[in-house]
Amino acid sequence: MDHRAQEVISLCRKLAEFTEESGHITRTFLSPPMRDVHHELGGRMEQLGMSVSVDAAGNLRGFYPARTPGAPRVIIGSHLDTVPRAGAFDGILGVVMGIVMVDALTTLHMSFGIEVVGFSEEEGVRFGVPFIGSRALVGTVDEGLLALRDSQGASVAEAICSFGLDPARLPEAKLAQNTLGYLEFHIEQGPVLESLDCPLGVVEAIVGQSRLNACFTGKAGHAGTTSMKLRHDALLGAAKWIVLVETVAKSIPGLVATVGRLEIEPNAGNVIAGKARASLDVRHALDEVRHQALERMLNGAKQIAADCGLTFEWEQHLDQPAVAMDQTMVNRLGQAVKATGYPVHHMASGAGHDAMILAQKIPAAMLFLRSPGGVSHHPDENVLVEDVQAALNAGMHFLKQWEMHLG
Amino acid sequence: MDHRAQEVISLCRKLAEFTEESGHITRTFLSPPMRDVHHELGGRMEQLGMSVSVDAAGNLRGFYPARTPGAPRVIIGSHLDTVPRAGAFDGILGVVMGIVMVDALTTLHMSFGIEVVGFSEEEGVRFGVPFIGSRALVGTVDEGLLALRDSQGASVAEAICSFGLDPARLPEAKLAQNTLGYLEFHIEQGPVLESLDCPLGVVEAIVGQSRLNACFTGKAGHAGTTSMKLRHDALLGAAKWIVLVETVAKSIPGLVATVGRLEIEPNAGNVIAGKARASLDVRHALDEVRHQALERMLNGAKQIAADCGLTFEWEQHLDQPAVAMDQTMVNRLGQAVKATGYPVHHMASGAGHDAMILAQKIPAAMLFLRSPGGVSHHPDENVLVEDVQAALNAGMHFLKQWEMHLG
Repeated sequence: MDHRAQEVISLCRKLAEFTEESGHITRTFLSPPMRDVHHELGGRMEQLGMSVSVDAAGNLRGFYPARTPGAPRVIIGSHLDTVPRAGAFDGILGVVMGIVMVDALTTLHMSFGIEVVGFSEEEGVRFGVPFIGSRALVGTVDEGLLALRDSQGASVAEAICSFGLDPARLPEAKLAQNTLGYLEFHIEQGPVLESLDCPLGVVEAIVGQSRLNACFTGKAGHAGTTSMKLRHDALLGAAKWIVLVETVAKSIPGLVATVGRLEIEPNAGNVIAGKARASLDVRHALDEVRHQALERMLNGAKQIAADCGLTFEWEQHLDQPAVAMDQTMVNRLGQAVKATGYPVHHMASGAGHDAMILAQKIPAAMLFLRSPGGVSHHPDENVLVEDVQAALNAGMHFLKQWEMHLG
Repeated sequence: MDHRAQEVISLCRKLAEFTEESGHITRTFLSPPMRDVHHELGGRMEQLGMSVSVDAAGNLRGFYPARTPGAPRVIIGSHLDTVPRAGAFDGILGVVMGIVMVDALTTLHMSFGIEVVGFSEEEGVRFGVPFIGSRALVGTVDEGLLALRDSQGASVAEAICSFGLDPARLPEAKLAQNTLGYLEFHIEQGPVLESLDCPLGVVEAIVGQSRLNACFTGKAGHAGTTSMKLRHDALLGAAKWIVLVETVAKSIPGLVATVGRLEIEPNAGNVIAGKARASLDVRHALDEVRHQALERMLNGAKQIAADCGLTFEWEQHLDQPAVAMDQTMVNRLGQAVKATGYPVHHMASGAGHDAMILAQKIPAAMLFLRSPGGVSHHPDENVLVEDVQAALNAGMHFLKQWEMHLG
């Protein structure tokens, strides 16, 4: 089956040429190159005997029927849009994998149909809100979402019409009755699998996230004339806190915490900082663990502020719960990976994915493919042919086991 | 003599009205309000029997003669220019103090003449280079300095001409032969005297300064998908270093060290920082102590970088030696403060002053007056009438003791 793995990579590279920006890979929601992707992938689907449509949210949907009419279906999918100046694999790999798996059935049909979905929007670039494509399948594209406007002033509804689609038909985009589950292949977008020398990772949960803005306030002062003990140095307080955040995060398995933004006032070399504004991003697969960690970090900040003669304020702007993947699907994915001869690594996804949205309605699971160098959202983003091979093998095994369990 | 202290404050407040910017105190080198200050202070000097001139660098110079012709002289002075939106006392207080001390002699003459100098430029605002006024007295206004241009494109030489002065006469601005020493009264510009409940501080040295730009480089990464142990977080490295800089500084009496500027890339809440650029400012009265402290800080940075998987680079852009005040003058100032009933606190000046320049040629010393709230370079800058009184008493005692020692 080696040629199929190579075909997945070649097709992703070919599709990367459909871009809004020459010399880069940029393909946002309902942009002209998205139509080219639909044409290319839709054509391949039709060659495999799939019935192809584009729903009112711009999702490409190809259905490969079961042996018997009225049978249930399984969805394999991911997204077709990209961030600006992206790589060639984030999202689209999972769609191409679905098509190539149908091809690997070599005209055989299973006891369930296979629907391959290429979601129109996941990255949130054009309208500042992610998951528009998958939200259409779970029925949560509401009037508020349709009224959002892009930087050119076009609303989501208008963008749908301009693409030749009809927002009134959005209800038809919803999941078919009797959909058994959703499987998504996706590059890891991180360095963990590579560090473990594992080609594949079975996602157990998509982490919950806390995001907040923190602010230490002290007193600006002359760097030469203010003795160390008379200072109220806001940057020193923030620095002590950043160190504490890392210490807390490292003490809790699976937790990640990041201060990625820091702004100082007045930010001059010879003036003690009067104010330091920092972001905090905390993620974990268990909401309770995340909340406890955040509390430790905030209590630490208050103690540091008291010790340094500062005040500390904070404001939370995101508290997004974790989403568990379906345990039965997770177990079967693990078995499939093992059966095909690869080590099984269970992990949480630190980033959001379409599977998180589908999980609201149907069983969902994800299989991660190792990201060389941990690189994603960058032209250097890559995937190894042997890892694609491993994923195809595991995926085919997974489908066959599922069929067997359905009896 | 209480009315004289009040007079000092009133006169400083009045002179604060001579400004380039209505509603604020902004008076830069050779600006129109500087001429008003010369007129106001020159008039007062003449009333006291002083001969008044403005030298070719724009310094106001008033000479109160000794009892006998050809006697030596003592200079009392400070600067008349301000930072933008300044307070009413930084600099000009020391000039007004000199005039009021001459007034306090009540037409008596001493065995040395007293030259009161109001320096035209100390803050470095207009041409980006400080001490232009005092440099004229020690003969270091060179062609390079005269060629510097302000934001309007005018050179120093042109600014001197526009003010009605002649750069060719700069050599005449040099210190008179037989100048015994230079005494400068100045607000502390820091919170130390207030914290010690001392009205006055005897300056022993003006600190040396090291200033450098430091840069930690790691690897930008996804805040959700990069586990804690696989990170190369440049901001975490910088934070650990800021904490270390404070620890080193606090372990060395009299040392101050400040990271006042910090810039992060890409500076986004959900991205691990790839780069952190920080300033470092280290000051101490002993150059060797400062150099050793800096070495500990840089070695610490290298160790932190190694521990965090980062690289560390740095570039020094200032290594300015400390300037000792004249020990005999320092001792006599201490005796004068003590004799007038105030506690004697010896200290280093953390900021540069005209005394630093004069010390290149003649004995120099400074007496600091407590800064309420440690505030300077701000409209809230203030000085207490009782502290001015203390400084006047100590200054008069100092002059009389000096006369006695001359025999």
